[in-house]
Amino acid sequence: MASPNFLTLARRFSVGLDVTKYPIKITPTLSAIQCSAGFYNYRKVSTKSSTENHHSFNFESSARKAAVALALAGTIAGTGLYWKYRTNGQDKAPKKLEGLSVPSVQGKVLAAELKPGALQKSLPTYSAAEVEAHSNKENGIWVTYGNGVYDITEYVDQHPGGNKILMAAGKSIEPFWDIYSVHKNDEIFEIMETYRIGNIKDVAVRSKSRDANDPFKDEPSRSPLLIPSSQKPFNAEPPVQLLAEKFLTPNDMFFVRNHLPVPCVCLDDYTLDLDLSTGKPSLTYQQLTQNFPKRSVTTTIQCAGNRRSEMVKIKPVKGLNWGSAAISNAKFSGVSLNELLQHYNVNIDTVRAKYIVFEGLDVQPDGSPYGASIPLELARMLKNDIIVAYEMNGEILPRDHGYPLRVIIPGVVGARQVKWLKKIYFSPEESTSHWQRRDYKGFNSSIDWHNVDFDKSVSISQLPVISAICDPVEGTELEPGAEEVTLKGYAWSGGGRGIIRVDVSADGGNTWHEATLKPNGQTPYRSYAWTLWEADIPLPQGQSKTELVVKAVDVSYNVQPDSVAGIWNLRGCLSNAWHRVNVTVPSP
Amino acid sequence: MASPNFLTLARRFSVGLDVTKYPIKITPTLSAIQCSAGFYNYRKVSTKSSTENHHSFNFESSARKAAVALALAGTIAGTGLYWKYRTNGQDKAPKKLEGLSVPSVQGKVLAAELKPGALQKSLPTYSAAEVEAHSNKENGIWVTYGNGVYDITEYVDQHPGGNKILMAAGKSIEPFWDIYSVHKNDEIFEIMETYRIGNIKDVAVRSKSRDANDPFKDEPSRSPLLIPSSQKPFNAEPPVQLLAEKFLTPNDMFFVRNHLPVPCVCLDDYTLDLDLSTGKPSLTYQQLTQNFPKRSVTTTIQCAGNRRSEMVKIKPVKGLNWGSAAISNAKFSGVSLNELLQHYNVNIDTVRAKYIVFEGLDVQPDGSPYGASIPLELARMLKNDIIVAYEMNGEILPRDHGYPLRVIIPGVVGARQVKWLKKIYFSPEESTSHWQRRDYKGFNSSIDWHNVDFDKSVSISQLPVISAICDPVEGTELEPGAEEVTLKGYAWSGGGRGIIRVDVSADGGNTWHEATLKPNGQTPYRSYAWTLWEADIPLPQGQSKTELVVKAVDVSYNVQPDSVAGIWNLRGCLSNAWHRVNVTVPSP
Repeated sequence: MASPNFLTLARRFSVGLDVTKYPIKITPTLSAIQCSAGFYNYRKVSTKSSTENHHSFNFESSARKAAVALALAGTIAGTGLYWKYRTNGQDKAPKKLEGLSVPSVQGKVLAAELKPGALQKSLPTYSAAEVEAHSNKENGIWVTYGNGVYDITEYVDQHPGGNKILMAAGKSIEPFWDIYSVHKNDEIFEIMETYRIGNIKDVAVRSKSRDANDPFKDEPSRSPLLIPSSQKPFNAEPPVQLLAEKFLTPNDMFFVRNHLPVPCVCLDDYTLDLDLSTGKPSLTYQQLTQNFPKRSVTTTIQCAGNRRSEMVKIKPVKGLNWGSAAISNAKFSGVSLNELLQHYNVNIDTVRAKYIVFEGLDVQPDGSPYGASIPLELARMLKNDIIVAYEMNGEILPRDHGYPLRVIIPGVVGARQVKWLKKIYFSPEESTSHWQRRDYKGFNSSIDWHNVDFDKSVSISQLPVISAICDPVEGTELEPGAEEVTLKGYAWSGGGRGIIRVDVSADGGNTWHEATLKPNGQTPYRSYAWTLWEADIPLPQGQSKTELVVKAVDVSYNVQPDSVAGIWNLRGCLSNAWHRVNVTVPSP
Repeated sequence: MASPNFLTLARRFSVGLDVTKYPIKITPTLSAIQCSAGFYNYRKVSTKSSTENHHSFNFESSARKAAVALALAGTIAGTGLYWKYRTNGQDKAPKKLEGLSVPSVQGKVLAAELKPGALQKSLPTYSAAEVEAHSNKENGIWVTYGNGVYDITEYVDQHPGGNKILMAAGKSIEPFWDIYSVHKNDEIFEIMETYRIGNIKDVAVRSKSRDANDPFKDEPSRSPLLIPSSQKPFNAEPPVQLLAEKFLTPNDMFFVRNHLPVPCVCLDDYTLDLDLSTGKPSLTYQQLTQNFPKRSVTTTIQCAGNRRSEMVKIKPVKGLNWGSAAISNAKFSGVSLNELLQHYNVNIDTVRAKYIVFEGLDVQPDGSPYGASIPLELARMLKNDIIVAYEMNGEILPRDHGYPLRVIIPGVVGARQVKWLKKIYFSPEESTSHWQRRDYKGFNSSIDWHNVDFDKSVSISQLPVISAICDPVEGTELEPGAEEVTLKGYAWSGGGRGIIRVDVSADGGNTWHEATLKPNGQTPYRSYAWTLWEADIPLPQGQSKTELVVKAVDVSYNVQPDSVAGIWNLRGCLSNAWHRVNVTVPSP
């Protein structure tokens, strides 16, 4: 059976063919090629023609390299070569492949004899630092998997997923494969082992600061995937290319926005205090997790500063220099706020107050806690959807995300969804915290630090419609002579407003195409989770560079503003203009 | 007492003074000047200085002409002349008036001896056509009031409200004064009578078409204020300058959007049919108005095509060429939809359906009615706010607005708020009407009639954030050498999202100022009525023309898109880009 190794074979030959121009026909004997479906990201568009006895495949991305592999595979099987492809949702008629000169197959078929990444005592051993030093084309690209060290320098150009593989350069490829889990199959492991050069030394876990005076001495471990925008407090976003791969962002990839050191919470001492003067005692973690029905909500959480780095290009702002991945999506489970209040015999619809206030266990040097509030009117609208969460994607809430409890207020800015939740109370006024009164507010572009009056602006609660292209990223070099490009990304709106349309452009916004939306399973007016989308769209021909653009529309037909300049504000919040990504297209 | 006539006197002298540059002091003996407060639109900023014994006034608009009047009044009273004014919210120090040469007072003080507009048999009589012929500077500007005809050609330039007075040229000024009701006082009537030239002939009411075959034979009478965009069916908007004058738009000024002839409804035959298979009979008008509690909601209604004329400038679209006044605001009263359903023992929260459908008595030539629907999810969210209205601003619902009943669905596009309501039912699918399925949907700017697929787009329900400058209007010539300009307008967002900020610019969007919002009395998340706003902002100096701009922000921090081009669509709906008005500023 040729199939287990055709990828290896494909890797060994570079036919230099722009097969997007050709049809490829595969005989049924090669149906095993479907084992690599995800890897090559295709979908079968027709399975059989009785007269021609062939399979056709429709490649969604990485068409050229995948097609090379298929061409070789077809050749190996001694069949003719055909190619069929889609442009902008329309099938092109299959055409015979003419003039293709395929080299004879010389590659050795490797046996899948080793467990991937297993120690191979015959090979040399490298330190983590040595691996890390190999993270560019000059020094070579190394990655690790399990005990294995791999020199993938030669492979990078052949990687069907393009230069995404470079995200792992000098590091372990495992966390990335947790996202792109389609890699975890025998064919890929087999290819991987052909690049094996050695074993990795056991790496000691990086010792944390144990300086007793360091307020950050108890920070949790974090995934190497995260790209920090500040270390103390820790703030980080995942690589944007990974973001649109998973509807539920894995916990260790979820963006982290901490304002203060992460509290070290001992559950024995912990209670959630509802300051409601009802006489009933505070609740323990055990009571909260066991005495109430478990309620869940799948919701996107976004930092008000997501995509701030685009505003910085207009004029400096104060704030972390977030890219477009300060946003993530997870399923949170816990106690319904409303049921919690009912336990205290409090009726949220009749309680006399204007705000509901949340305070965390994270404290400032003066001992005052992080705090936030939302208007009671909003809390009433959302009451059955507000959750005091103790689980995130089915796991215990991670420390970076608020262990033991975080209040989840879907559709609202992350800053109000207080982590390490300690106290809830009603108030005639907003939280008096810095973050409620002197931060997370919007202003027009003529307001700067000399004339700002924070009291005059309304605190950000619900967020406006936003979208971003996650893949390709800024500066990507597309395939030489590429005629189309596959875009992937997210779109989301606050207030539970679902996304009804995502428009993408490959020519800077002159012409638009509708992206294919991946339904989030929620209803249009209670749509708290993002909508991931994808689009194959034609590139303008004869241009060596172009600008990709995305803009989304929510169910209330709110649109994103055209320009960053029009919404610039001194804090760099609410950066939801059309998202633009510049790419280059080398000559074929 | 000099005060009753100083305006008359002021009118008779043109001192050619740009008094915005001078302070004016008025003696307390002239406190009667406050009688004309509204007319000259000032507010007193300080009442007394013990040493100087004067009043200061701060003029919000029309400063020059008002100041002339004050200067004269001050002169008549034999006092010194001072002037104090504000720029951009800041008081300028009062200054003595230097070098002012005021002509001696020669004007005859007129006695207010006649009832305004009363027949004066000594004067000639003119026909309506003769008056109508005098509607421009070449022929002269005539207006009527009651029986009176007035030649106000000379007065136009002195009108404190600027060229707004020209809206009434060749017509009765009365409907305008119903809006600008501050005109209705003795001083103004007295001035008016000095321009009296004659009496108007009784004008026969324009006979309606009584052609029995004309489906439009029974159209209601309409206010001459309305500016039609089509006659059959009748569609019209009020003059935009009037729109921001009243929080509640008067019924006869409310924009009219009819898709078909206005039905002629006889209450004896009328029932509202709830097709709910409950066995309970349909309800008569009397039952509806007498057997249910009267519920009210104050809400803005907007046509999806409001501001379409701006899109037309980019590329032609299909639709009525609406200006920026296809939007109005009123208090509607009637029966709560939810209470109506409860009468039929229907629980909207548990009924099995996906849509609630409304049908009108207005029918197409084939007999099928106008129809519309909204998702049941939305109806459930709004249930206590949806009203089957029989009153509008405390009056019986006018025929053009749906007599006898209109469903009011606040925050939603006007097209779904079915007029002449006849039938309500639940359905697994949307209304099958043309207007639900083949109209009132959004598309991106690359979709045109050759490639449109209405089935792929989501019907418009809730509308996005919008705003407009109502005054000044496009092409206005401001005061020569004006240093600031007063803008007035509206801002609104669908879905009950209140307006939290309105930014205005007098330099095409380079610098922004926050307008003063007039609270609509509603809560931020259930804010169905528009927010009127006003702003005095500095004009760029030394420029003969400039562009005024407005953009609004709603409580979910949704903003308006920058450009019309970015949201252009083949039906010209949802035209909510920044609103721009070009004005000229002659040299002083």
